[in-house]
Amino acid sequence: MVSEEMYRLGTKKSTIRSIFEYGRQRAAEVGAENVFDFSLGNPNVPAPDFIRDAAVDILMHNDPIEVHGYTIAPGKPEVRETIAADLSKRLDMRVAGKNLFMTAGAAASVTIVFKALCEAGDEFVTFAPFFPEYRVFVESVGGRLTVVPAKTDDFQINFDAFEHAVTSKTKAVIVNSPNNPSGAVYNAETITRLADFLRRKEEEYGHTIFIIADEPYREIVYVEAAVPCIPNFYDDTIVCYSYSKSFSLPGERIGYILVPDAAADFDRVYGAIAGAARVLTHVNAPSLWQLVAARCAGRDADLSMYRMNASLLFEGLTEAGFSCMRPQGAFYLFPQALEPDDEAFCERAKSYDLLLVPGADFGCPGYFRAAYCVSTDMIRRSLPQFQKLVESYR
Amino acid sequence: MVSEEMYRLGTKKSTIRSIFEYGRQRAAEVGAENVFDFSLGNPNVPAPDFIRDAAVDILMHNDPIEVHGYTIAPGKPEVRETIAADLSKRLDMRVAGKNLFMTAGAAASVTIVFKALCEAGDEFVTFAPFFPEYRVFVESVGGRLTVVPAKTDDFQINFDAFEHAVTSKTKAVIVNSPNNPSGAVYNAETITRLADFLRRKEEEYGHTIFIIADEPYREIVYVEAAVPCIPNFYDDTIVCYSYSKSFSLPGERIGYILVPDAAADFDRVYGAIAGAARVLTHVNAPSLWQLVAARCAGRDADLSMYRMNASLLFEGLTEAGFSCMRPQGAFYLFPQALEPDDEAFCERAKSYDLLLVPGADFGCPGYFRAAYCVSTDMIRRSLPQFQKLVESYR
Repeated sequence: MVSEEMYRLGTKKSTIRSIFEYGRQRAAEVGAENVFDFSLGNPNVPAPDFIRDAAVDILMHNDPIEVHGYTIAPGKPEVRETIAADLSKRLDMRVAGKNLFMTAGAAASVTIVFKALCEAGDEFVTFAPFFPEYRVFVESVGGRLTVVPAKTDDFQINFDAFEHAVTSKTKAVIVNSPNNPSGAVYNAETITRLADFLRRKEEEYGHTIFIIADEPYREIVYVEAAVPCIPNFYDDTIVCYSYSKSFSLPGERIGYILVPDAAADFDRVYGAIAGAARVLTHVNAPSLWQLVAARCAGRDADLSMYRMNASLLFEGLTEAGFSCMRPQGAFYLFPQALEPDDEAFCERAKSYDLLLVPGADFGCPGYFRAAYCVSTDMIRRSLPQFQKLVESYR
Repeated sequence: MVSEEMYRLGTKKSTIRSIFEYGRQRAAEVGAENVFDFSLGNPNVPAPDFIRDAAVDILMHNDPIEVHGYTIAPGKPEVRETIAADLSKRLDMRVAGKNLFMTAGAAASVTIVFKALCEAGDEFVTFAPFFPEYRVFVESVGGRLTVVPAKTDDFQINFDAFEHAVTSKTKAVIVNSPNNPSGAVYNAETITRLADFLRRKEEEYGHTIFIIADEPYREIVYVEAAVPCIPNFYDDTIVCYSYSKSFSLPGERIGYILVPDAAADFDRVYGAIAGAARVLTHVNAPSLWQLVAARCAGRDADLSMYRMNASLLFEGLTEAGFSCMRPQGAFYLFPQALEPDDEAFCERAKSYDLLLVPGADFGCPGYFRAAYCVSTDMIRRSLPQFQKLVESYR
């Protein structure tokens, strides 16, 4: 009587959701201050004051019909022009308003692109560890997701495996850097090699292979080197962005898709994006937040708390005996579990009230994710618990 | 290289869009004050001050992490409780928070329901004249839309045709009252007969047939009689709502789906709705607007301008010689065209700078839609043009 598939997708609890619910229940038993929940990627840095000020100013002074009316599907032209001018500086590439399509956040951005591109039989390739909703979204548009195993020494790309994963049916490669959950930033060498390989494959197969660069963490980076701007390495790149993390607005659903002029068949890609947004019923990106994003283009939130948390948790865990790559971006640590079975490890961590997500959820068993978008104080108080957890394995 | 279907859906201009663009171009030539654009259903009553005040107050005084954070997929529990309490009064039925699923507006509401319900081979039935995006949305989830011809004497339901349109494959009947574009409100007699018929068919076929009540115009009504609350007539009703028209917030994308307790298989329907929202990438309804909708539950905007416009345009057009039903709700007039070919009629109207939408677009040829969510002054100034148009047919 209902779609079985939708019922399954709507009711099967994700691991992260189950952990989160366990945490709430446990907090009621032992007190919130005694539960160390590292399970959720929900920004804990408040949206900056300039966001609030911009929103209030627009609400108080602009014509409400202009503020709250339908916008054209790609978003208000003047909003896109303003954001494009800022991006031209930020990304060191030429971006115009016509290259942008405003969306309701990252999930919408990537899925609109998947749906715009996907033809029968198409494959999309991504790299473990990866955001597990990619599989749901790719399959929902009729595509097939191929996952390349992780390169666990540095969480760059495992090229041996990748080169076997690309086939004549590959429509696009999904790149998420800074990465959720590994905290890695793909370096220029990685992106250069990726671009060179894909150009060869485009020539060999005689069709375009896109890179879909999913970049909600672009502004959250702790390395000295600049984050490579992928369209400057590879023409056929479509960038997906969300203000959820950089401006701490995940609930408001605002972001964009950037299709550079150099991308193959610009007009057809942009047109298909409009069609996909239409059938996914994203009539337009929320109009107030379009205006706020434009008003605040060029501003950057103070995200130094994540840097502080990254250091504190990394130092604490490595001192306690964990093996872990130093975080380069985003707000996740991805250490090795203390036994091969990461799910068993996370279960044992629960008995120390440490809520962690098994790496298997991200296609990378043997590891776990600790989201450090939490209070610095909680991290500090959690460290003795991590120590006890390590001791339990001795 | 892209999905042909998405490209087509993203680039084929709708008639309304083409008329709107013509209007902008014409306004540049002859001055905006000389173009009478009745083509768009974009509210021209500004969002009420209490909406602005609520939004500003929340932005100024609430914790930004609470305001802008992810909400659970169905929406904030306290928001749904508050809206449900108001709906219990408004609709004279019992509604609880668990009956509501907050959405990003009407297009999302109906399409999430279509996708939640649709199994292979399913049919959805609606009544001409109808909102043309229904066809796009139903077909995008794999369903088939059956359109029942209009009953043009009063724009209630053509039951003879309807009873032949319902088959063993009918999953749901889409009811849009107050109606876009006819301006009719289905009366209690119509809804009673519809409910009785569907109950018989449910029994005959041995499965549920839902009514999907798409009600964005519920608060915009000019008749004395109460608008029938369909769930009180028929248990298996799912109500789709949007604040776009009642609070003039179409750009912000905020609304809800209401699944009453009495609807068949509540848990499975609600679960499938969650799955459909997930794959359509509506992660959550915009969080600030969830809070504003709850804060303003129980308030009503002053929509008297639409009533005034309805009278003015109806009187003006009937005096000029048009045949037209007196508007009962929404903000559309749907008169008979002055020749059988409504497209030719609308083309001729253009030469008097009257921009009207052919009824064929809504599955009802021989009629046209005039949206009167425009300034009263423009309506007044347009009447001599309508008169000239009538004279041109003498």
